[in-house]
Amino acid sequence: MFSFTDIPGTHDALLAAELQDAIDGKTKPPGSLGMLETLALRMGLIQRTVRPCVLAPRILVFAGDHGIAHEGVSAYPQSVTWQMVENFLSGGGAVNVFARCNGVALDIVDAGVNHDFGPREGLLGCKQGYGTRNFAREPAMTRQECVRAIEAGAALVGAFADSGGSSACISAGEGPAQADGSAASPTAVAGVLRPAVGGPPEAPNVLGFGEMGIGNTTSAAAIMHRLADVPLAECVGAGTGLTPQGVRHKLAVIQQAMALHGDARAPLDVLAAFGGFEIAMMAGAMLQAASMRMTLLIDGFIVTSALLVAARLHPSILDYCVFCHSSDERGHARLLRTLDAQPLLDLGLRLGEGTGCALAVPLLRCAAGFLGEMATFDSAGVSGRSA
Amino acid sequence: MFSFTDIPGTHDALLAAELQDAIDGKTKPPGSLGMLETLALRMGLIQRTVRPCVLAPRILVFAGDHGIAHEGVSAYPQSVTWQMVENFLSGGGAVNVFARCNGVALDIVDAGVNHDFGPREGLLGCKQGYGTRNFAREPAMTRQECVRAIEAGAALVGAFADSGGSSACISAGEGPAQADGSAASPTAVAGVLRPAVGGPPEAPNVLGFGEMGIGNTTSAAAIMHRLADVPLAECVGAGTGLTPQGVRHKLAVIQQAMALHGDARAPLDVLAAFGGFEIAMMAGAMLQAASMRMTLLIDGFIVTSALLVAARLHPSILDYCVFCHSSDERGHARLLRTLDAQPLLDLGLRLGEGTGCALAVPLLRCAAGFLGEMATFDSAGVSGRSA
Repeated sequence: MFSFTDIPGTHDALLAAELQDAIDGKTKPPGSLGMLETLALRMGLIQRTVRPCVLAPRILVFAGDHGIAHEGVSAYPQSVTWQMVENFLSGGGAVNVFARCNGVALDIVDAGVNHDFGPREGLLGCKQGYGTRNFAREPAMTRQECVRAIEAGAALVGAFADSGGSSACISAGEGPAQADGSAASPTAVAGVLRPAVGGPPEAPNVLGFGEMGIGNTTSAAAIMHRLADVPLAECVGAGTGLTPQGVRHKLAVIQQAMALHGDARAPLDVLAAFGGFEIAMMAGAMLQAASMRMTLLIDGFIVTSALLVAARLHPSILDYCVFCHSSDERGHARLLRTLDAQPLLDLGLRLGEGTGCALAVPLLRCAAGFLGEMATFDSAGVSGRSA
Repeated sequence: MFSFTDIPGTHDALLAAELQDAIDGKTKPPGSLGMLETLALRMGLIQRTVRPCVLAPRILVFAGDHGIAHEGVSAYPQSVTWQMVENFLSGGGAVNVFARCNGVALDIVDAGVNHDFGPREGLLGCKQGYGTRNFAREPAMTRQECVRAIEAGAALVGAFADSGGSSACISAGEGPAQADGSAASPTAVAGVLRPAVGGPPEAPNVLGFGEMGIGNTTSAAAIMHRLADVPLAECVGAGTGLTPQGVRHKLAVIQQAMALHGDARAPLDVLAAFGGFEIAMMAGAMLQAASMRMTLLIDGFIVTSALLVAARLHPSILDYCVFCHSSDERGHARLLRTLDAQPLLDLGLRLGEGTGCALAVPLLRCAAGFLGEMATFDSAGVSGRSA
C-alpha cells in the first residue's frame, strides 16, 4: 500500500560485535558510559558503520486540530493550536529555543490545523483538513483521509532523499516569492541551520518528531488503549493541565467513544477512528524515515502513540528509534514499557512540541563522538585491568 | 581560616517570585518543562537575575593518587591515573569528547599524581604530593596537607576573578616558554574554547568538577560513611569494575581503616584521614566558586563526596549546585538523597572525569534559554486556560 513497506531490522551480529569491540576498547571501564554505549551501538547498526555520526539533525513539528476538543477534554481552547503554530513560526516556542541552543533545524508542518495560515516562511503546508471530526460521534478520519495523511507524512520525509529538502507538500507556486521572482524553497528553518537562500538544506540522518494539537492526548490515549491493550484509566492523563475532575470527564468521553468504535481494532482502523492528521502524518513520516535508515527521535506521549501505530504496521521500525524522554503525561511511561523502550531523559517534561528530541540531540552527538574520537587503551598506552 | 568563609545562601523571596512569574508566563502549561524550570529558577537565584545565562562553561578535572590503592581496592593499577592524565592532555578521554561536543572548556589539574609530567600545555600543575598515604595504615594527609590542598583548589578558582585565567598554581617560570620567550599562560584549554594565544580565557559562570584517581571511590565511600552516617556497605561499590569478591575486600579494608581513624569525625579530619589531594582541592575549589556565585556542576560519586565535605563546612554551598547525574556507582544515589539533590540525568554512567557535567551543560543552556527567549502568552497572543 505504501512506498515504505520495506523496513528491514537493523540486526547484524557481525557489525554489532565489531561495534561492541570498538566501544569496549575505549579508555574507560567496560560499560561505564551506560546508555550512551547502547545509543552508540544502536546508531552504528542503523547507519551500518562503526563510525556513526549526527548529520544535520532536524525536528518536524506536526500540528493538527481535533474534533474531540469540542468535548471539553483540554484545559486550553482549540485556537491555541494555530496560535502556537504562529508562535513557532516567530521562534518563540520552547522547541524553537531548545533547537537553537542545540543546533537542530526545525520545520513546522500544518498537518490539519483549523486555521488558514496562507503561505508562510518556515511552514510546510500539508493541510489534510481543518481538523478531524469529533470521534465521540463519528470516526475522526475516514479510512481514505487517514491513508492520505500517512502518505503525505511519508512524502515529506521522502523528499529529503532527492533534494535534501522537504518539498513534498507545497507546490512551488504556493511558496512565498523570493526577491528575484523565483519560488522560495518551501523548507524554511526556524532554528540555527537555515540553509543558504536557494540551496536545499542538508538531508538529516537524525530526524525528530514533535507535535502540537489541542485535544491530542485524548487521541493518543484512545490509540494506546486499543493498540497496546492497556486499561484506559492508565492511558488517560492531565494533558496540558486538566484538573482531576477534568481528567475524569476526559476518561468518560473516551470510554463512550470506545463503545462507538468497537470494531476499530486494526492499526489503521484505530488511527482513523481516534487519531489526528498530525498523528497519521507522523506515523507515515516515521515509516519513511526508518526505510531511509534515519535515526528517529521519539518525543513524548502523542509522538509515541504515532510510533505505536507505525510499529504495529512494521515492527522493525523500533530498531530505528531513540526514545528521548519519559514524559510526565500519565500513560507515557507505561507506553514506553510496552515498546520495550529505554528513554534517555526523565526531566518531568510534559509539553510535547518535540522538546524532548531537541534536548536529546547532544546526547546522540556525544554517543557518536566517544565512539569516533576517544582513544583506545592501545592507542593511549593506558594499562588494562589488573584485577 | 579560608578566604571563602562567606557563602551566603541564594534565598531571595522577591526574586524567586519574579522568576516564577517569568517562567509561568511563557507559552506552555505551568510546570510543563519540569526540571528545566527548577534549573532556570536556581540559576536565576545564583546569578541574581531573571535572565540567567551560561558563560564560558568550564570543567576542571582534578587528578590525584591514593596510597590506599596499594591495598588492592581497584580493578586497575595506580599507573592508570597518570596514563589517563596523558590521555586527557591528548584529548582522547571521554570527558574531552563530551566537552568538545558541547562547547565546554576543559582543564586538567595535577592535584597529586604519582608521576612527573613536567610542564605541559593543558595541565595545571598543582601537585600537593606524589599521592596520599595509605589510610589503611595512617591518615591519607596531615591536617596541614589537607588544608593546603583545599586552599590550592580555592586559589585556582579565585584566579578567575582577576585575569579570568586559572593561573594560581603554576608560577610563571614553571610554564612552558612561548616562542617569544615569555612564560605561557598556564591555562590551556583541551576543549573547543581555547583562548587566543596570550589572552586569558573568559571567566566561567558555570564550573564543572571532574576527577581521576585510581582508588578514589574507596576514599569517597569512607568520607560518605563518616560524614553522611550511612552504613558502610551502602557506600562501597565496584568503582571501575571490581568483582563481587573485590567489593567485599574493599569493604573490609575500609572497615578496618574506620576503626584506625575512629577519632576523625569533623569534616576536615575526615577529609585528611580518608581523602585525596584531588578531593580536597575540589572541596576548596567548590567553596571558592560558590563564593564567587558560580553555578557548580556536580558530577559523580567522588565529586559529590568532595561536595559533602564542603557542605558540612558551609551548608549554603548546596544552593549553588546542579547535580548533573545519578551515577551507577553504589552509594551515589543515596548520597544524592542525603543532600536532597535531584540529579538531571540518569544514564547509568560510572566513569567520573566530569563526563556527567559535560553532558549536562546543554540542559543548562536550554534552561537559561527558555527563560530568556521564549515568548509569553501576552507577547505571542496565545490564549490562556479555558478550563
